[in-house]
Amino acid sequence: MKKVLIAGFDVFGDNPLNPGLEAIKLLESQQLEGAEIRVCKVPVTRYESIDTVISAIEAHKPDVVLTVGLAAGRSAITPERVAINIDDFRIADNKGNQPIDVPIVSDGPDAYFSTLPIKAITQRVQERGFPCQVSNSAGTFVCNHLFYGVQHYLRNSHIKHGFIHIPLLPEQDVSGTQPTMSLENIVEGLKIAAQVAITCDGDMKIGAGKIC
Amino acid sequence: MKKVLIAGFDVFGDNPLNPGLEAIKLLESQQLEGAEIRVCKVPVTRYESIDTVISAIEAHKPDVVLTVGLAAGRSAITPERVAINIDDFRIADNKGNQPIDVPIVSDGPDAYFSTLPIKAITQRVQERGFPCQVSNSAGTFVCNHLFYGVQHYLRNSHIKHGFIHIPLLPEQDVSGTQPTMSLENIVEGLKIAAQVAITCDGDMKIGAGKIC
Amino acid sequence: MKKVLIAGFDVFGDNPLNPGLEAIKLLESQQLEGAEIRVCKVPVTRYESIDTVISAIEAHKPDVVLTVGLAAGRSAITPERVAINIDDFRIADNKGNQPIDVPIVSDGPDAYFSTLPIKAITQRVQERGFPCQVSNSAGTFVCNHLFYGVQHYLRNSHIKHGFIHIPLLPEQDVSGTQPTMSLENIVEGLKIAAQVAITCDGDMKIGAGKIC
Amino acid sequence: MKKVLIAGFDVFGDNPLNPGLEAIKLLESQQLEGAEIRVCKVPVTRYESIDTVISAIEAHKPDVVLTVGLAAGRSAITPERVAINIDDFRIADNKGNQPIDVPIVSDGPDAYFSTLPIKAITQRVQERGFPCQVSNSAGTFVCNHLFYGVQHYLRNSHIKHGFIHIPLLPEQDVSGTQPTMSLENIVEGLKIAAQVAITCDGDMKIGAGKIC
Repeated sequence: MKKVLIAGFDVFGDNPLNPGLEAIKLLESQQLEGAEIRVCKVPVTRYESIDTVISAIEAHKPDVVLTVGLAAGRSAITPERVAINIDDFRIADNKGNQPIDVPIVSDGPDAYFSTLPIKAITQRVQERGFPCQVSNSAGTFVCNHLFYGVQHYLRNSHIKHGFIHIPLLPEQDVSGTQPTMSLENIVEGLKIAAQVAITCDGDMKIGAGKIC
Repeated sequence: MKKVLIAGFDVFGDNPLNPGLEAIKLLESQQLEGAEIRVCKVPVTRYESIDTVISAIEAHKPDVVLTVGLAAGRSAITPERVAINIDDFRIADNKGNQPIDVPIVSDGPDAYFSTLPIKAITQRVQERGFPCQVSNSAGTFVCNHLFYGVQHYLRNSHIKHGFIHIPLLPEQDVSGTQPTMSLENIVEGLKIAAQVAITCDGDMKIGAGKIC
Repeated sequence: MKKVLIAGFDVFGDNPLNPGLEAIKLLESQQLEGAEIRVCKVPVTRYESIDTVISAIEAHKPDVVLTVGLAAGRSAITPERVAINIDDFRIADNKGNQPIDVPIVSDGPDAYFSTLPIKAITQRVQERGFPCQVSNSAGTFVCNHLFYGVQHYLRNSHIKHGFIHIPLLPEQDVSGTQPTMSLENIVEGLKIAAQVAITCDGDMKIGAGKIC
Repeated sequence: MKKVLIAGFDVFGDNPLNPGLEAIKLLESQQLEGAEIRVCKVPVTRYESIDTVISAIEAHKPDVVLTVGLAAGRSAITPERVAINIDDFRIADNKGNQPIDVPIVSDGPDAYFSTLPIKAITQRVQERGFPCQVSNSAGTFVCNHLFYGVQHYLRNSHIKHGFIHIPLLPEQDVSGTQPTMSLENIVEGLKIAAQVAITCDGDMKIGAGKIC
């Protein structure tokens, strides 16, 4: 039986709600075809976030790792294409760190592509009726930080990994100023993504065009 | 037992899906506290749309009428504040009508305010966790046309009426370009709106500030 | 020689810059074909704003009145179609007034259409290469308040009047979060609007379809 | 005397207007403090675009290279942070090429950071009153292609290079649907960017935090 590790950020600041956290609570008990799901709660702090996911990878020995975070303002589930080697925090993380234009790994390459089949995931999630689109920027805050750090750790591994941004929950912006997605649909979309990542074979190095 | 009539547009053009139509299918069998729901399917054509709702009002003798239509691009359920006396169709309706700057009622006033308690509805829907916001323009297409026509018909009546715009369904834009709302949440929001409209008393002529 | 009165709001809050105010400073000395421009600075306060424009109308006896205000977030010059009889201020005006859902004129009609040839203006401004679009809502703050109040005062007059919203100036949002328009282009657009309004004949009551 | 090479794309498809092309026509005859400007017109085709800029670099031997392209929908001048090693063309280029998820340089790294002082440029352009913001994605079309290709060519050089996206011109969307910037302001912003890039010293490898 294969394993998928899905890592979601814990609450940020004094906001009691985080869609990634709510999603992993519901995903914890779920099964995929030919794989089981493990989850991991990630602190919204710079280095601790990477260390937490690395520990969970070592504990669970998954075949696929999905790291998940909130992108307020987006209408769709967005598998990220690329992680870049820079921290440029517009606001401070949960421990008050606010690095400006500091490399995440000082001798690391400028970027890593996702090793998830991001196009196959996008196609499958869309076919099931949920908004989904490839994104070309995970930003420069903790989401990109975690994405880059885990990808760097896995750079010589066969474990596939990528970051998926998810929208705000409806109750997070009842004013209607920003788009939202229901928790049920976020969970469904993440399950489809995990299933595709487990099932897809072949060279997915650049994460992309081939639909398996 | 009071009655709420909820009127939703039928399919438009060759798009097989219309969130208002899907919503009234689910609302048809539902009960509110102290009221029952009647529904009505409205053709997406100029005068027929008004006539259809007037016939349903005469048949059902409701206490409250909600007319409902799609506003692609909006993130929230949006009770409309005002209907204006003009047809200015950017595209043709289902019968090929495309009036440009023609009054809906030739001797009618320039506008009618909604007689729904739009602020109370908005507050209650938001409190329940669903995005909702008052809108100040129902556009100049069939939605505003129906809103104005029904309000004109009810101008000397005690029946409360207003138009509520709803977002696209997720499956209507899987590319994620536009915001969407799940059908479950749209239905829930419309039920709350209907309940508030049935329950609220007092002078709601300008549709507004008082929260009942 | 005909006369056009162009009224722009004074500075708001502690923001030293207001595009309408900057525009009327430049428009003050300008000539149109067959008409001269008079300008008027309007305080950002509820009733004083209307009184100020009425005084200027009585002093200058113009043939056309353009009232002008800022709509942050818009990309185009937007002639407004309709003024509605309600004050619903999201924030306070310069004197601390913040009415919520109060009629502007207690026995006034729900709305007045602009008496400017808004479609002809839009077409001509676009032909000259400047972004322009009819808007169906002037909001519910001081802009709509002034629009409604002046239209109510002129309801039995032959003087044409309408409100035109203009975008932010580039220096008002250097972060690039919101769209902007250069002062030169705003001034040029307003001059074209004034020229069209002076030149157009015929029934423009609903402000609209006929291109003169 | 130092030299700045500014390269702008030629017209695309059957659109006779390209803001980058118009900008370099005006920039051609201009001087900076301590530097002169050279310009270069770039075909909107995959490999030819890179070859054209490389030839211009060899001919002019500049100290700084700015490659410039249109980003419709943006409100600001946006210096790009990073070029990624992938062509994923949503539409075909001027020669009908439409690669999907193909590396630009088959053995190249996943990405290169801009070697321009993008934060110093952004700060200086904003101080002068023009909207400007760092962007974290140059997309996956010809703009990113050119950015990556030139950065790869210059990877062991002391010549600074980066890509700057500019908004639509006002006359390119008179409907007001998308934000625009006047040509005068685009040219002014590019001149400030060139001046800052010429003047800044120090380690700008990651393109970023230091303000010189």
